[in-house]
Amino acid sequence: MMMVDEVADRLTAEDLRTIWPALSDDERVAAFALLEREDAIDFFLGLTGLDQATIILGYPTNERRLWIRLLAPDDAADVLQEVTLEERAVLMELLDEPTRREVNVLLAYAEDSAGGLMNPRYARMRPEMTVDEAISYLRLQARKHLETIYYAYVLDEQQRLLGIVSFRELFGAPGDKRVRDVMETDLVVAPEAMDQEALARLFAEHDLLAIPVVDDQGRVQGIVTVDDIVDVVQEEATEDIHKLGGMAALESPYLQTDFFLVIRKRVGWLSILFIGGMLTASVMEHFEQELSRAVVLTVFLPLIIASGGNSGSQASTLVIRAMALDQVRLRDWWRVFRREVFSGVGLGVILAVIGVVRVLLWEVAFDAYGDHALRLGLTVGVSLVGVVLLGTMTGSMLPFILRVMRFDPASASAPFVSTTVDAAGLIIYLTVAKLILTGTLL
Amino acid sequence: MMMVDEVADRLTAEDLRTIWPALSDDERVAAFALLEREDAIDFFLGLTGLDQATIILGYPTNERRLWIRLLAPDDAADVLQEVTLEERAVLMELLDEPTRREVNVLLAYAEDSAGGLMNPRYARMRPEMTVDEAISYLRLQARKHLETIYYAYVLDEQQRLLGIVSFRELFGAPGDKRVRDVMETDLVVAPEAMDQEALARLFAEHDLLAIPVVDDQGRVQGIVTVDDIVDVVQEEATEDIHKLGGMAALESPYLQTDFFLVIRKRVGWLSILFIGGMLTASVMEHFEQELSRAVVLTVFLPLIIASGGNSGSQASTLVIRAMALDQVRLRDWWRVFRREVFSGVGLGVILAVIGVVRVLLWEVAFDAYGDHALRLGLTVGVSLVGVVLLGTMTGSMLPFILRVMRFDPASASAPFVSTTVDAAGLIIYLTVAKLILTGTLL
Repeated sequence: MMMVDEVADRLTAEDLRTIWPALSDDERVAAFALLEREDAIDFFLGLTGLDQATIILGYPTNERRLWIRLLAPDDAADVLQEVTLEERAVLMELLDEPTRREVNVLLAYAEDSAGGLMNPRYARMRPEMTVDEAISYLRLQARKHLETIYYAYVLDEQQRLLGIVSFRELFGAPGDKRVRDVMETDLVVAPEAMDQEALARLFAEHDLLAIPVVDDQGRVQGIVTVDDIVDVVQEEATEDIHKLGGMAALESPYLQTDFFLVIRKRVGWLSILFIGGMLTASVMEHFEQELSRAVVLTVFLPLIIASGGNSGSQASTLVIRAMALDQVRLRDWWRVFRREVFSGVGLGVILAVIGVVRVLLWEVAFDAYGDHALRLGLTVGVSLVGVVLLGTMTGSMLPFILRVMRFDPASASAPFVSTTVDAAGLIIYLTVAKLILTGTLL
Repeated sequence: MMMVDEVADRLTAEDLRTIWPALSDDERVAAFALLEREDAIDFFLGLTGLDQATIILGYPTNERRLWIRLLAPDDAADVLQEVTLEERAVLMELLDEPTRREVNVLLAYAEDSAGGLMNPRYARMRPEMTVDEAISYLRLQARKHLETIYYAYVLDEQQRLLGIVSFRELFGAPGDKRVRDVMETDLVVAPEAMDQEALARLFAEHDLLAIPVVDDQGRVQGIVTVDDIVDVVQEEATEDIHKLGGMAALESPYLQTDFFLVIRKRVGWLSILFIGGMLTASVMEHFEQELSRAVVLTVFLPLIIASGGNSGSQASTLVIRAMALDQVRLRDWWRVFRREVFSGVGLGVILAVIGVVRVLLWEVAFDAYGDHALRLGLTVGVSLVGVVLLGTMTGSMLPFILRVMRFDPASASAPFVSTTVDAAGLIIYLTVAKLILTGTLL
């Protein structure tokens, strides 16, 4: 690859970060090898688990050992989750014995649970220590690799959590006070199996830098730090956004995902929507007589049904995001519904006015609709209010229905809402037309 | 409000957290006052700036002072950004003099810049101190309110940043070593004006817990901690998701946002899409002759144009999210385009097969299309490949075009893509029909 060769003698971590997304796996390994050792370590530690796996596997065995041992046990576990089972066994051999045991424990947890995110190494102390003793003891522990020592965890002999001391408190306290008198006992802990989305909410609610993970006996298994939560939040948002686009979520970056995998993630929903959309064809066939008598009706048809889809997609997006952030819960459905009924009428009337103006303008300018211009305008206007209202009601309630049925509310994507609304929108439009135009145009 | 009164004598922070989203502002103030003091403080600190402002303003002046003084300067500045200018002046008076000065400095920064997110209180030390001296000095500083002491910042006399010491390193080092020999000098810093999205990426790239903010002379102005970045990431995702739903982004939670403000945020895009959608009516009028001769063509019309919108919305969503995560950049447009051309053909062929089967099935079952079934099936199939391909190409390129024009790529929402694709999709379908069916159906 041109770009990499050219700069071979002066590639910095910053350069590599810039071109990284554009490189293939092989190019990444080659370019990474050009970094100076210190740069390389910093760069490596900032990569995702997937990219770290690529780099490690790109090296021969003895070099691999060096890189994988740079990682904390939770990060090593992430890397091992990105490789094949064969590669996993090979890489496992490269870890030192205690880390291997820790990683094995971590791999047993679901990747997206508190247990799967935690680091088993954390600062600990005993309640009967004095503050001075505790600080000295922390200095000893710091020589080992600790994930964070911003909080220290006070444990009894059975490793059960008694309290938490923040460094700020420990440092601000007189040296001869006991740890038990300084520690916070109003504890926020996460069970091992807690889902990462719930865990992210726990962090947001309590504004904490780290949360200890405990088993069902209250014994501390590790801690999750807020920097891992940033990744969780990004991941969950990506998942929701992909679903909102009317497809299954990709787990790796778009350009790095196998082409056929991307197709598979898209074709499912696309086919479902297409088959669902066939309902519109059946509705159209039902109204074939009216359509053949007044072709002018078909002229406004795409415009009117699209408006229902658009207003519905706004409503579903608002509700889905509010649900993901826990701002709207199931029991709020009635407040949401009431709001969206009013929104639907308001927005519908505004579009109706624009629509009627369009019909009348064309009539004045081109004499487009003859004697029927007023009635046609009325048909378009009334239909728009109905279709937009249908859109906001359907769009806002679909996420609730999906959640009650234990599906992901984010599946109520803009395309899904449009498809749901299209056939009913057609029925509204063509029925209104029949009512208003029978005896004149029809 | 029933719920609150019933549990008045035993309301816990946990209870309040559960019912919080369902309460009005007045109910929130009333319920909050029922918490025990220690619970209340914990709960208060975990609230968003907006909610904190509601609580503070709900109290009489002397109580207000108590609550606002609980906040670090950056959090106090957030609260002041949520209130009217009059209320701001009143609340400012309640702060102590040094905090007021700090808050005033913070308010001068854009809310979504590094300067607006930083805390001006951080742990500092001099390079010539020994490790033992530095640790004692930190214990002194910890008695004041520091945002974090996980990192300490080594400054010269002009407050310029010389290096950073993590607690882990400081604690792990021999007591008689100098700070200058322990500190990290390969520094990651953020300029004051850096946008919060870029800042979030900086955190992700370097996996840091805090980043110092410096002015153009390299003097440290404050630090941003990763827990604030979690909020930034959530906010940015919400903004993008709202835009992807075809509306302007809301800044406060849906149910808490004024009804008419929500309408205003929606009506702009909805009207633009409606007016853009009128192009479909003009296209339809252009093909009125063909449509009146073969009404069967209109039957498949909504289905076919919806498929273009759906495939386009998938493509735009993938590209927009990858851009937001910096996985796809402007120069990648050709790789994306090539990928989406192949995707469009692949997905189009799959839908075409389903579409042709539908036409033939209905023909066999209901003799729906007479002699023209085969040709009609061919028309539907060929159009679908064309429309789906048009959708993936338009959907994937729109975000690039918007970015080049300095608009937000996230505006290439599913509804926007559908509207853009609808008229062109109609032209494809009706032109294909004309080519295949002229002399038979037409």
